[in-house]
Amino acid sequence: MTEHWAGRNLLPFALSRRKVHAILNGIDPIWGRPFELVWAALILLSAFFLALETEPKLSETMRSILALEEATIVSLFSTEYILRIWSAPKRWQYIFSFWGVVDLLAILPFYLSLGIDLRGLRAIRLLRLFRILKLVRFVDAVERLRMAFADIKHELLVFAFMSLIVLYLAAVGIYYFENEAQPGKFSSVFQSLWWAVATLTTVGYGDVFPITTGGKVFTLFVLLIGIGIISVPSGLIASSLTNAHKRKSEKKLEQD
Amino acid sequence: MTEHWAGRNLLPFALSRRKVHAILNGIDPIWGRPFELVWAALILLSAFFLALETEPKLSETMRSILALEEATIVSLFSTEYILRIWSAPKRWQYIFSFWGVVDLLAILPFYLSLGIDLRGLRAIRLLRLFRILKLVRFVDAVERLRMAFADIKHELLVFAFMSLIVLYLAAVGIYYFENEAQPGKFSSVFQSLWWAVATLTTVGYGDVFPITTGGKVFTLFVLLIGIGIISVPSGLIASSLTNAHKRKSEKKLEQD
Amino acid sequence: MTEHWAGRNLLPFALSRRKVHAILNGIDPIWGRPFELVWAALILLSAFFLALETEPKLSETMRSILALEEATIVSLFSTEYILRIWSAPKRWQYIFSFWGVVDLLAILPFYLSLGIDLRGLRAIRLLRLFRILKLVRFVDAVERLRMAFADIKHELLVFAFMSLIVLYLAAVGIYYFENEAQPGKFSSVFQSLWWAVATLTTVGYGDVFPITTGGKVFTLFVLLIGIGIISVPSGLIASSLTNAHKRKSEKKLEQD
Amino acid sequence: MTEHWAGRNLLPFALSRRKVHAILNGIDPIWGRPFELVWAALILLSAFFLALETEPKLSETMRSILALEEATIVSLFSTEYILRIWSAPKRWQYIFSFWGVVDLLAILPFYLSLGIDLRGLRAIRLLRLFRILKLVRFVDAVERLRMAFADIKHELLVFAFMSLIVLYLAAVGIYYFENEAQPGKFSSVFQSLWWAVATLTTVGYGDVFPITTGGKVFTLFVLLIGIGIISVPSGLIASSLTNAHKRKSEKKLEQD
Repeated sequence: MTEHWAGRNLLPFALSRRKVHAILNGIDPIWGRPFELVWAALILLSAFFLALETEPKLSETMRSILALEEATIVSLFSTEYILRIWSAPKRWQYIFSFWGVVDLLAILPFYLSLGIDLRGLRAIRLLRLFRILKLVRFVDAVERLRMAFADIKHELLVFAFMSLIVLYLAAVGIYYFENEAQPGKFSSVFQSLWWAVATLTTVGYGDVFPITTGGKVFTLFVLLIGIGIISVPSGLIASSLTNAHKRKSEKKLEQD
Repeated sequence: MTEHWAGRNLLPFALSRRKVHAILNGIDPIWGRPFELVWAALILLSAFFLALETEPKLSETMRSILALEEATIVSLFSTEYILRIWSAPKRWQYIFSFWGVVDLLAILPFYLSLGIDLRGLRAIRLLRLFRILKLVRFVDAVERLRMAFADIKHELLVFAFMSLIVLYLAAVGIYYFENEAQPGKFSSVFQSLWWAVATLTTVGYGDVFPITTGGKVFTLFVLLIGIGIISVPSGLIASSLTNAHKRKSEKKLEQD
Repeated sequence: MTEHWAGRNLLPFALSRRKVHAILNGIDPIWGRPFELVWAALILLSAFFLALETEPKLSETMRSILALEEATIVSLFSTEYILRIWSAPKRWQYIFSFWGVVDLLAILPFYLSLGIDLRGLRAIRLLRLFRILKLVRFVDAVERLRMAFADIKHELLVFAFMSLIVLYLAAVGIYYFENEAQPGKFSSVFQSLWWAVATLTTVGYGDVFPITTGGKVFTLFVLLIGIGIISVPSGLIASSLTNAHKRKSEKKLEQD
Repeated sequence: MTEHWAGRNLLPFALSRRKVHAILNGIDPIWGRPFELVWAALILLSAFFLALETEPKLSETMRSILALEEATIVSLFSTEYILRIWSAPKRWQYIFSFWGVVDLLAILPFYLSLGIDLRGLRAIRLLRLFRILKLVRFVDAVERLRMAFADIKHELLVFAFMSLIVLYLAAVGIYYFENEAQPGKFSSVFQSLWWAVATLTTVGYGDVFPITTGGKVFTLFVLLIGIGIISVPSGLIASSLTNAHKRKSEKKLEQD
């Protein structure tokens, strides 16, 4: 990013704009990290208050505090948004970038809801939670994660698709076995899909389960095969991530 | 496959037959991929409508649409089947191949059910879902998957067999502990097997569980050992798949 | 084993004894494999009938068939046991070996129960199920499995022990949180252990679960940490098994 | 540690102090290991009795035995604590070390509770359970475990944080879907978090589950994505541990 201001290096104004940009993106050697941590805390706090607000029994005092908090956080986020635009080397690029849109969406519902009730939309603000992953110390790990994902994305897609097929076939199968015995719970293939999801992810709430012998035997086979397919992706990610890690360490070792 | 038509290369008829074959198998440079995608969508749609049909409350209009859809899809699949036979380099080989039989089974129930009711058999059509895995971009990943499976097939068999033994022993054990206390739920070893499956796959619906102290202690040990055995296969697949992937990348690197 | 009979090679009796030994252990080039497969089927059949016998509603005919089957299988196993002793190069060594004891235990309950009722003990016969793992084609995979286990046995012990500590601490913790609110279900730390097992293995039957806020928050933390510990062993086995496999393949490649 | 007593090597008193230190830390060639094993048994016994004490129906005799056991174990632990201080090369360093504090906390509640009731605090004694991991033969495995953890600590943190975000977003989402239909069970985002934890860890007690179609479809997506994130860490640990193991073996091989 240094290149963009190359020509204006001597102007104090440009310098300050550059500094703001460095701070906001956590790359300023002195203020970058503290800003990031404070802002991460602010985002977490904002998420906590959003959850607190849904509590059905809140005292009047609490409600006032929450309203105040809401206004404070939105002001801070708004200021940040304006500063980000102002300090961005290429302003339009930031505004239409993924994070630019997220930053706008995080504050927009507040201003719109002054007229009409758009409280529900404020949940969009939660997208900001992912900003925390940009914290400097995690950048390497997130980068390795992206590499690991890219490595096995085709395998993941194949397994994701096979998982969906297995879920669908399990739902169709159990429908034929249980529909007569439990017409209320297995009324259609779509209803049976709920059973398939709860069973094959091994959540097993216990609200729907087969009661016929055929349905139970079918469940046995579906489980033994299905789990083998559905739990592969997370194993793949873990395994690939460790490899990406190892590869990087070996590269480092060779360079030393 | 080019070899089979080698002698007829100059005849326009042979060329068109060859082109149809190339399109149907997704290897035609221009029409192969679009056909595959449209056909994949068609297969998914057909699966969706098959599920929709089981909905108990459907309006008359909806039923008419479904009947129409049924006829349309079967016509398309029938046309495809005839074209595949016609364009196949070795016709009988295709007809008796795995996919040839699946393609026939996918349309047969419709024609047979014109006289008698064979709607249930239409579920066979779902086998076509696996055709989607033949999509060009997944071919590599599926190939690696097959390699990974071949690599560890003996280990998988050993663990599959050990899983069955563990399930069986768990069922026998819990039967001795719980049969007296809950004669209705643990009436025989086969009934207890249902508990063993629901427990060792960690689904745990909650319809059957031990209530005696002996049964609970037995469950503790069975779980700690059993899960260690039953969840190994998916770990094996994931781990072996990552290795197959790595091996291929290293090979590629060496060749470059 | 060839060495033991080295001196008696010319005697027809010694030869036949040797042949019987080879057949019984599946190493005879002609009869070894068929015998193994028939015997594996017999063991599986015996396990199936043992389960069938627990069915509460069996017709008189069925009971007679089961009694006949019992007698037949025990005769066959007894003959095998006697032949194994007779053909063993070192007889006492076989009798006191692990499999020698299992083979005896498999038939003993039948003879003892002629006087008194010892039907329950027949379950010991199930130990024979593990004999199936000695089938020739699996020997390599089982060998690799043993290697993989030996490789990580200390890690497995550490995690097994940590799992027990986590289970125990979870039980103690939930007891303090839930004992007052649900004195029936969390009456003591031992009772709470049942909850800890059902929760940390993610079975979650739903017969016991925390209802206090403290208990729920505690469960949250216990789950996030506990699952990370309890599900490591099976990942370790899978990962180590794949490595053992790879190492062997690389060794083979180097030798070629 | 030999260095600290270097100057006093000839004094019998210093020697004995040194020997006590060696025994207490399991490094004495003769008494180290037996002491460790006896002490490990004592710690386990103390944990067992702590659990036993919570049994609601205990006879008077049992209570007396427990009281006696309590006094005995605390005396032994107190003696050990005093000997550890006395024999430590740097006394204050031990007292303020992690294990020094744990050792004190293990006995303190007993002495304090002579006046007031502090039985609950005795659970702190359970921290001593982790001392067992210091048993000599496990030291290597624990060391490899620490290395494996250090290797992937950033990845673990990223996934731990992503898991928390997923849990939070799942709770917010299900709250919007189910709050109206089940105001009692999904009364606030915090209440919904309980559902999110029970579901995404696949425990699925069955006390709370979605009943609206929207909630069920949301659960489907949350599960398919969430499990992929939440179960990665244990796979990471397993995978990294196997690598750490392999690396060490290869190093050993090179040295030989």
